[in-house]
Amino acid sequence: MDLYLAEDTICAISTPGGTGGIAVIRVSGPEAVSIVDSLWKGAPLSSAKSHTAHLGEIIDKERSDEPLDQCVATVFRRPNSYTGEDIVEISVHGSRWIQRETIALLIRSGCRMAQPGEYTRRAVMNGRMDLSQAEGVADVIASSSRAAHRIAMSQMKGSISKKLSTLREQLIQLSALLELELDFSEEDVEFADRNRLLQIATDIHNELQRLHNSFQGGNAIKEGIPVAIIGATNAGKSSLLNTLLDDERAIVSDIHGTTRDTIEETLEIGDYLFRFIDTAGLRDTSDPIEQIGISRSRKAISRSVIALLIIDATTVPDDSLDMTALRNHLPEELLSDTGISPSIIVVLNKVDLLDSSSKTKQAINTDKISIENVIPISAKHGTGISDLKHELTKIAKNKDTTDQNDIIITNLRQAEALGQAIESIRPLINGLNNGLESFLIAEHLRETISHLSTITGTIPSTEILNTIFSQFCIGK
Amino acid sequence: MDLYLAEDTICAISTPGGTGGIAVIRVSGPEAVSIVDSLWKGAPLSSAKSHTAHLGEIIDKERSDEPLDQCVATVFRRPNSYTGEDIVEISVHGSRWIQRETIALLIRSGCRMAQPGEYTRRAVMNGRMDLSQAEGVADVIASSSRAAHRIAMSQMKGSISKKLSTLREQLIQLSALLELELDFSEEDVEFADRNRLLQIATDIHNELQRLHNSFQGGNAIKEGIPVAIIGATNAGKSSLLNTLLDDERAIVSDIHGTTRDTIEETLEIGDYLFRFIDTAGLRDTSDPIEQIGISRSRKAISRSVIALLIIDATTVPDDSLDMTALRNHLPEELLSDTGISPSIIVVLNKVDLLDSSSKTKQAINTDKISIENVIPISAKHGTGISDLKHELTKIAKNKDTTDQNDIIITNLRQAEALGQAIESIRPLINGLNNGLESFLIAEHLRETISHLSTITGTIPSTEILNTIFSQFCIGK
Repeated sequence: MDLYLAEDTICAISTPGGTGGIAVIRVSGPEAVSIVDSLWKGAPLSSAKSHTAHLGEIIDKERSDEPLDQCVATVFRRPNSYTGEDIVEISVHGSRWIQRETIALLIRSGCRMAQPGEYTRRAVMNGRMDLSQAEGVADVIASSSRAAHRIAMSQMKGSISKKLSTLREQLIQLSALLELELDFSEEDVEFADRNRLLQIATDIHNELQRLHNSFQGGNAIKEGIPVAIIGATNAGKSSLLNTLLDDERAIVSDIHGTTRDTIEETLEIGDYLFRFIDTAGLRDTSDPIEQIGISRSRKAISRSVIALLIIDATTVPDDSLDMTALRNHLPEELLSDTGISPSIIVVLNKVDLLDSSSKTKQAINTDKISIENVIPISAKHGTGISDLKHELTKIAKNKDTTDQNDIIITNLRQAEALGQAIESIRPLINGLNNGLESFLIAEHLRETISHLSTITGTIPSTEILNTIFSQFCIGK
Repeated sequence: MDLYLAEDTICAISTPGGTGGIAVIRVSGPEAVSIVDSLWKGAPLSSAKSHTAHLGEIIDKERSDEPLDQCVATVFRRPNSYTGEDIVEISVHGSRWIQRETIALLIRSGCRMAQPGEYTRRAVMNGRMDLSQAEGVADVIASSSRAAHRIAMSQMKGSISKKLSTLREQLIQLSALLELELDFSEEDVEFADRNRLLQIATDIHNELQRLHNSFQGGNAIKEGIPVAIIGATNAGKSSLLNTLLDDERAIVSDIHGTTRDTIEETLEIGDYLFRFIDTAGLRDTSDPIEQIGISRSRKAISRSVIALLIIDATTVPDDSLDMTALRNHLPEELLSDTGISPSIIVVLNKVDLLDSSSKTKQAINTDKISIENVIPISAKHGTGISDLKHELTKIAKNKDTTDQNDIIITNLRQAEALGQAIESIRPLINGLNNGLESFLIAEHLRETISHLSTITGTIPSTEILNTIFSQFCIGK
């Protein structure tokens, strides 16, 4: 594949923002080596082999002969680099000041500040990866649990691309035969066996449908498995959430780096990311911004995969929990007949205040809702929390239909393109069943092929490229 | 110099914390290459040359064959590495999850988590740099202005070490001659010329004194030049501070990463870092914690290099500012006879509310305090702010006695060691003037040499090492 030769050379800090031991500044483009060389005191990088690291100094010659920093520059020669272009990675001391000044100096020397995702975009333009893999890169960077990471890595390494390109090639072969028929249309020949075509189209439809169906589960794994926290006031919902969060403070992450939503918290437990929705936040309010949040939460609850029903153990009169009575605690969103029924864990809080004899309260199951387990805990003292975590990961693992070898869609854009491909393959199948004319079948085929191409970006439009890469971080 | 062969191999994330395009994990020690190789899918690193970069995958073989990440490993062979040991730098995708899991995997494979500054400590132990240079590394990473960075770079490159080792060598030569005298003490000979000794001791004393004196200015440049903001309530102190900070939001930094002190803000303007002390915070309080802050601020004001006297222009009756009357605004700390007198800038705020005719108010100087300039501004509209910044940097530049070629002390430990060296060289000079006996002179000499050695760490004690490196960030 020919290289997409960008005319300009870009630079950006590729490591996380802030102060650290070192920071890496990436320079990519036709002038990468010569620009860095113009600031470089040390063995000239122009004569450096690819994939070699060199100690030297960055000097701002305009200002003075004082070095800006002592650093290591690693040279990657095209096409064997991340972008497919010449790259110099400069490993500087990680002060904000040095990072900023080095970037400023590179820009004064002829570089342009990279846009978000521009390195990966150049990698795509140079055929180093396709669009779906590029989206995998973004997901790898954003993934915050083992399960999400596994799916993203698989996508980055091209699993979706391989799968789809196999399907697409089959369609292209058939399409070619059909086009041939059209050339000889007056002779009424059939190069493309209609039965074989129908079989393949049906197989592809089913495979597309399976991929499309994987989106909901895949997305839950990526964004966090929704867990509704339900219970009366003072049952201990907030304490439980705090105890869970506090225990894992180091790995709490906000949802997608946006401002923290006051009634949602994500937390990695075991191999999975969970998104806890505190239903305490569900109250009537006239604040329009709060209303938006609450309406979003109601939606999340109705889609929740697990519900934690928190009950103050000291308020339960006898040894058995009457779940029929407790149903009043459940928000209507969980009971509505949406077809999705969350697994319910009854969390019996404040067991530290019970007599030891009554610590074995059991739940009476009702036929309407399914209770996974009753877990006695003390949010205050942290007892039972590990049991609860174990139960959460057990349910997540059971619900996780993403086999290690299965290909999972987690990306909304891909899910939408798959939906469109499915929409266009259905009339193709119908048409084949009903003896539709060749030229109409050919048109449906072309459309399906085009939708499949959108996913891997065999024919990416500028608009799609802009949308995808604007969501990247700068420096990647 | 023999290598200090650490027995264990350490690992840490060397780039700033958080999510980014890439993150660098540094592995250093005798097993660095073999440990990474045991997790590596790609060309074996054991046969890689020093300073070469290799694409491959990190695989957690215990868990599965799935790769943890696709990454680039750069090999540095001892002794030509930062620490003087074998180093592998692994450049992974910058998700928090991958960073954490890679570190966990390295630890399970035989690495130990590095302590703060342990890489640099190993560099010192292996003679790759001395203590003073190591402190320079920490300062380079912490420096947040051009002026502070220049001093830190000079120290990292060994300027203080060179200077002190020259002085120290002269003393050692003299000491050797004196020791020789002691061996022949019964013969009453003088190998060491007392006049030459006195001359050298005096020169060294003066040089040590100069270095020691440089600490105050050097420290102000490193920590921020203290600027007191003074003025009546509603004159616009807070608006001015906010306007200054807002204008440069991107580069505001907290003092040394500690919790933000409510009445101090640092801000880089031009080549200098300024530390603004809002005297509005100086109020009577019974809160013991607030009292500590206020007492610290009072101290800071009394040491302030610049004072901004904010005056509401609309409250000044005529065209001239009566500074004698305005003296009432100045806190006693500024007027007390400490010998240090700050430069005062009169900031005439709210000039937007004045008639244009009266916009030229002038200050009448008093003999007691010196007014640098009167700057009319509007904190609300941002007018005049650039003039004020220009004035601040102009004063800072004038007060900055740190010439590019001068060696500046910015480090408290070094300043204290210099102080002790000065204390021990004084009795040596007195003794030489008063014909003190050789064995006593020799003792003073040994003590001075030992204090000088402490600075560059020629004979570092474990305690000093621990103190210095515990202040480093992890990963350096």
